[in-house]
Amino acid sequence: MTDGWRVLSLHHVAVAHGDEPTCEDFFASVLGSPAHTEEGPGFVERMYPAGAAFLQTLEANGDGVIRRSLDKRGPGLHHVAFRVDALDAALIDLRERGVPLIDEVARPGGMGTSVAFLHPSAAGGVLVELVQDPEGGDPTHG
Amino acid sequence: MTDGWRVLSLHHVAVAHGDEPTCEDFFASVLGSPAHTEEGPGFVERMYPAGAAFLQTLEANGDGVIRRSLDKRGPGLHHVAFRVDALDAALIDLRERGVPLIDEVARPGGMGTSVAFLHPSAAGGVLVELVQDPEGGDPTHG
Repeated sequence: MTDGWRVLSLHHVAVAHGDEPTCEDFFASVLGSPAHTEEGPGFVERMYPAGAAFLQTLEANGDGVIRRSLDKRGPGLHHVAFRVDALDAALIDLRERGVPLIDEVARPGGMGTSVAFLHPSAAGGVLVELVQDPEGGDPTHG
Repeated sequence: MTDGWRVLSLHHVAVAHGDEPTCEDFFASVLGSPAHTEEGPGFVERMYPAGAAFLQTLEANGDGVIRRSLDKRGPGLHHVAFRVDALDAALIDLRERGVPLIDEVARPGGMGTSVAFLHPSAAGGVLVELVQDPEGGDPTHG
């Protein structure tokens, strides 16, 4: 089990696409408008609320990690993110257990969060992100 | 927006794999033991709790939809499932809007639920499942 940290909840599931109106249209039609939209390097990120979690769409609009992922694997589910209580402690614990990490230290994510990605080989080919809410809690799910 | 039904929450994210111990080992190490394990046709389904949602693993142990998915796409994220308040009404509404469905009517899912899958072309290539808890509520999340 984890040492000094724990998963609190499923934070979001991410979907990557190029310029696929049915993807945004579908999720907007069943989940409502995005609670948050943010530009990343070469992509637009939209967060559709689904209870305490989000469906995140990542729309490539230039070169970057999302375009490269689309070129390699096509559109579809991209990663799963878990909300944790102590991201720095999680990364220390995972590193000590030999879990392969993409981000050795936490970095800023969307909506004021801190995030880190684990290497897909850590979880049978699944890209896993850990997310910690900003101090003072999740701004969208107080 | 939806007519006569709504999404209540993100129910689970599913991961398909063949015989990949790191996948089960990783999710068990960060999420704890599965809350529920069930045999399906050609696969074992395990539900790891993550807050109000689950990480579901689908381990192929024979011929069936999971083995075919692995042969076609390899291991990794398989589908995303949303908990809805009225599955029959959802299927009527989606059908009337021309959304392509795999299951035209609800069928039994794991843990006493009713489920239906939409066709991936409905959501930009993402396989989406709708789940309704059994009468009396979700047995694992009172």
